[in-house]
Amino acid sequence: MLDLQQLINGVYDDLQSSVGQGRVADYIPELAKVDPRKFGIAVTTLDGETVSVGDADESFSIQSISKVFALTLALGKIGDGLWRVGREPSGTAFNSIIQLEQEQGLPRNPFINARAIVVADILLAGHKPREAIGEILRFSRFVANDETVSIDPDVARSEQATGFRNVALANYMRSFGNIKHPTELTLGVYFHQCAIEMSCRQLSHAGVFLANGGRDPHTLQSIVSHERARRINALMLTCGHYDGSGDFAFRVGLPGKSGVGGGIMAIAPGRASIAVWSPGLNAQGNSMLGTRALELIAQRTGWSVFGP
Amino acid sequence: MLDLQQLINGVYDDLQSSVGQGRVADYIPELAKVDPRKFGIAVTTLDGETVSVGDADESFSIQSISKVFALTLALGKIGDGLWRVGREPSGTAFNSIIQLEQEQGLPRNPFINARAIVVADILLAGHKPREAIGEILRFSRFVANDETVSIDPDVARSEQATGFRNVALANYMRSFGNIKHPTELTLGVYFHQCAIEMSCRQLSHAGVFLANGGRDPHTLQSIVSHERARRINALMLTCGHYDGSGDFAFRVGLPGKSGVGGGIMAIAPGRASIAVWSPGLNAQGNSMLGTRALELIAQRTGWSVFGP
Amino acid sequence: MLDLQQLINGVYDDLQSSVGQGRVADYIPELAKVDPRKFGIAVTTLDGETVSVGDADESFSIQSISKVFALTLALGKIGDGLWRVGREPSGTAFNSIIQLEQEQGLPRNPFINARAIVVADILLAGHKPREAIGEILRFSRFVANDETVSIDPDVARSEQATGFRNVALANYMRSFGNIKHPTELTLGVYFHQCAIEMSCRQLSHAGVFLANGGRDPHTLQSIVSHERARRINALMLTCGHYDGSGDFAFRVGLPGKSGVGGGIMAIAPGRASIAVWSPGLNAQGNSMLGTRALELIAQRTGWSVFGP
Amino acid sequence: MLDLQQLINGVYDDLQSSVGQGRVADYIPELAKVDPRKFGIAVTTLDGETVSVGDADESFSIQSISKVFALTLALGKIGDGLWRVGREPSGTAFNSIIQLEQEQGLPRNPFINARAIVVADILLAGHKPREAIGEILRFSRFVANDETVSIDPDVARSEQATGFRNVALANYMRSFGNIKHPTELTLGVYFHQCAIEMSCRQLSHAGVFLANGGRDPHTLQSIVSHERARRINALMLTCGHYDGSGDFAFRVGLPGKSGVGGGIMAIAPGRASIAVWSPGLNAQGNSMLGTRALELIAQRTGWSVFGP
Repeated sequence: MLDLQQLINGVYDDLQSSVGQGRVADYIPELAKVDPRKFGIAVTTLDGETVSVGDADESFSIQSISKVFALTLALGKIGDGLWRVGREPSGTAFNSIIQLEQEQGLPRNPFINARAIVVADILLAGHKPREAIGEILRFSRFVANDETVSIDPDVARSEQATGFRNVALANYMRSFGNIKHPTELTLGVYFHQCAIEMSCRQLSHAGVFLANGGRDPHTLQSIVSHERARRINALMLTCGHYDGSGDFAFRVGLPGKSGVGGGIMAIAPGRASIAVWSPGLNAQGNSMLGTRALELIAQRTGWSVFGP
Repeated sequence: MLDLQQLINGVYDDLQSSVGQGRVADYIPELAKVDPRKFGIAVTTLDGETVSVGDADESFSIQSISKVFALTLALGKIGDGLWRVGREPSGTAFNSIIQLEQEQGLPRNPFINARAIVVADILLAGHKPREAIGEILRFSRFVANDETVSIDPDVARSEQATGFRNVALANYMRSFGNIKHPTELTLGVYFHQCAIEMSCRQLSHAGVFLANGGRDPHTLQSIVSHERARRINALMLTCGHYDGSGDFAFRVGLPGKSGVGGGIMAIAPGRASIAVWSPGLNAQGNSMLGTRALELIAQRTGWSVFGP
Repeated sequence: MLDLQQLINGVYDDLQSSVGQGRVADYIPELAKVDPRKFGIAVTTLDGETVSVGDADESFSIQSISKVFALTLALGKIGDGLWRVGREPSGTAFNSIIQLEQEQGLPRNPFINARAIVVADILLAGHKPREAIGEILRFSRFVANDETVSIDPDVARSEQATGFRNVALANYMRSFGNIKHPTELTLGVYFHQCAIEMSCRQLSHAGVFLANGGRDPHTLQSIVSHERARRINALMLTCGHYDGSGDFAFRVGLPGKSGVGGGIMAIAPGRASIAVWSPGLNAQGNSMLGTRALELIAQRTGWSVFGP
Repeated sequence: MLDLQQLINGVYDDLQSSVGQGRVADYIPELAKVDPRKFGIAVTTLDGETVSVGDADESFSIQSISKVFALTLALGKIGDGLWRVGREPSGTAFNSIIQLEQEQGLPRNPFINARAIVVADILLAGHKPREAIGEILRFSRFVANDETVSIDPDVARSEQATGFRNVALANYMRSFGNIKHPTELTLGVYFHQCAIEMSCRQLSHAGVFLANGGRDPHTLQSIVSHERARRINALMLTCGHYDGSGDFAFRVGLPGKSGVGGGIMAIAPGRASIAVWSPGLNAQGNSMLGTRALELIAQRTGWSVFGP
């Protein structure tokens, strides 16, 4: 039988010589302060049990991984009409504005920044920014099964002060009428959502409903339908790593979503949810060591969705 | 227990009212002659048994589905160095030339036309065109387990006479040195490869090694390694349907490869290979009814790689 | 001898049947209120004399024509280093953001919006926004030889409230460090500059220094050097009408700059400056009747720079 | 009074220290053989008299300058309908294929390769390739007033053997139906047209009809109408130097057309035609020393169309 604790210990040990590689995100000053040698892994199986190794209990900024939770919430709010706008891989960098012009201000998929800002705009409807942020935070705590999950106000402020590219994207979409609220409010929600902090342990638990047909393993409560869980997984596989999505599918073979804080959440449908964290990024903005760890875990467990 | 024959019969019946929808490819004159009301389904399980319904024994032009077999052969010939050039979704139409300029003549992935022409160029190395075509045909017969698989010379000629866009792509890549042979020879191989004809029954058998960890279910002979089968599946999932790849992953949830002849080959890893054929295409050039049939089959079998 | 008054009267009369054609700019609410049947022409010769016909004494929003005056001022402030960033036709629409990404946030030429915002940013250096706006207005009055030239605060406010695309451009450039001040200050200057109002009579006088080797015809004072006047004229010819610049050169054959308010200022070097105004625009955002009037004037005077 | 001989002698002397700079075109093997230190200037005034200095009597490959003569001929053949397809600066490199896809295979202006191939296709209509080539050669001899102008068969062959990018462009346009003849025939005409050889003396004479309102200065015969000469000049100014067109207008201020053989033909309307030759090219593919020579000539003569 598969001894998961031993397996992730092995992966953790085998990668020690690579710890510290890659480049820590520095466009957000707060993120640049993180120790590049941090490395944690956690795996939560369908019974809700979690095994972990390394810095798995230390909180980090989940950044774009929050797009999965915001999308899940927004689907609950407005239903599958949200998919209407597209779910194609963009083939371009995460903050590209070119495709936005060619396609009349309608961003390709919910995991590139532009469309994630649209999702934040949807969550803002009928609310004050503070309420929308509260709703996202409550949902994150609920799926992580941990009330201590929080938002780092310094990171949110840091993004607000330097996120000119996101301000550009939001205003560009507003010029096409695809953002409905004043952009500073919508971006306020978005920047706070990106500043949510979780540990690997919390994050792997937060993803397990997607491995479990949409259901919380403890309460057995349905968070999303089977079909919706499947679709979110499909989107993560094709679009979860920006213009490195094809490479991640090829090497790891699991749906996943990365953030520039160095975290990745990966889903093995019917098996488990996996969270890894290592701040050094590759050229596409995905955790270098984290990707490698997931590749080894997928190989050694045989969990790739593309075959053993 | 799952009665596959009954299940595909049900899908076939449920879709009768949609038969004939979509637009038959007409840019190749020979393809335009096909009866738009054809509709066939075949499923081959890991024991090598095949069930089928409708026009599943009638041959059709597999077109771009042949890219999977050519890629498999080329990997055997030059090894994993072939992947070097990329495996990212292109985010653009199948015959786009824009990305080729932006990326200095190096096409994104082996399933867009440009890169498939590079694969044909690799298969041509050290051979005469006739020999390279013969090798692809022999391999197709071998995986289909049927010596009657053949090439339609009229379709090959038709493509050769009208495939100006492919001539453009090949010469464009040649100008960057990415095509090594005279373009008319390389394209001769490519056009003949696209003109391979198979029935759904033959095609579902031809794909089953990809569902079976790279192994032929009858002979148990390994055609490709586990790892390579997984990677080919990953590529089909992210790039197998041009700029409709994200949508196919979202709706069907299986690796697949379509051709403008109206065929689709889909792989359910660890379960089965599925072939569908219906000539009417959607806006992205993928079989409209075929996609719908695969969506229903995935739903009713629970075979989606993204969860039940 | 050329009787200019009679000549423009003739052009004015010959075009009466076309008055009201084209589409008035409506993306700025204040501009949408203008009467589409307005039509004025004024010509100022090198001796400083002006002839005019139609609504030539009525003020209109000069919009992008102000880019010529702002550029002239900025050249005086920082010198020819300003040209460093480029002077190539963009080949794209006036508010395109695509080229900006492909070229790392450095806009092509000073007459597309993005680079005009950079020019406003240069004029802001060392000043409060109010002072920079005052400087542009004073210069406009000086070249127009008329102290009544003013800024319409409603138009400036209207642009500020709806100019999401320009906010996007400014923030996008800021993300590359090409805008040095807070974008709301820089855009404040830019939006006020665009809201300058002139009549055809004032505008034709304001351009005559460019026809006269950089010199004011009354005071004979040098406003810019011969060489700089020539270069500004060259830029107007190649880039003055967005993606309609080639067409304007082809049909009219004079350096010119248009604004979405329906005005065009054209320069016949060594002869005269011409201002036309008609609010209906063509597909490229240039005055439809204004372009036609300039085409007839160039034909009948033989003033095209490309030969009689 | 202007002593032209003395003036060009001065320019020639002043630039001696820069002779040999730039990079000789090497993508066509025959062109790479040319001595990079060649440098010639010739000026033909409206009375048909020519002054010259340096290597002004040595033949060189005029390459893209031939597009002006082919365009003139094609306008005579099918009339102004030829302009229908566009005359906007492309803003991109001379052999770009991106714009072609974005604009459905219709190239921007007659001076980028793609559209020049369309012009060759027009000249081929109703003829054998040999006849079309003969017609272009006869016209070139006629305007150069010299029966010794010829085509270098080695250069034509060299282009045919290596011009993959042009083969790509032609086939791409053929796929949209914008090339009417087999591409190998159309390209045969195009490659031979580019291989025309002239000396500076011949070339400056060949352009003088464009400075003279369309009329041959010796015979006073009209080659094209006033209006057509003006329009060809306008096109040369906005599009004659690929993505260096704006820079050439800014620095030189004259309509001109360059070729990768290192020649430039410039037109000073109402004054003269100027030909320069120096094989070293700048980054945009235009003669580096030739551009500098024209800049000095324009300064010292005051012939810029944008003012003295």
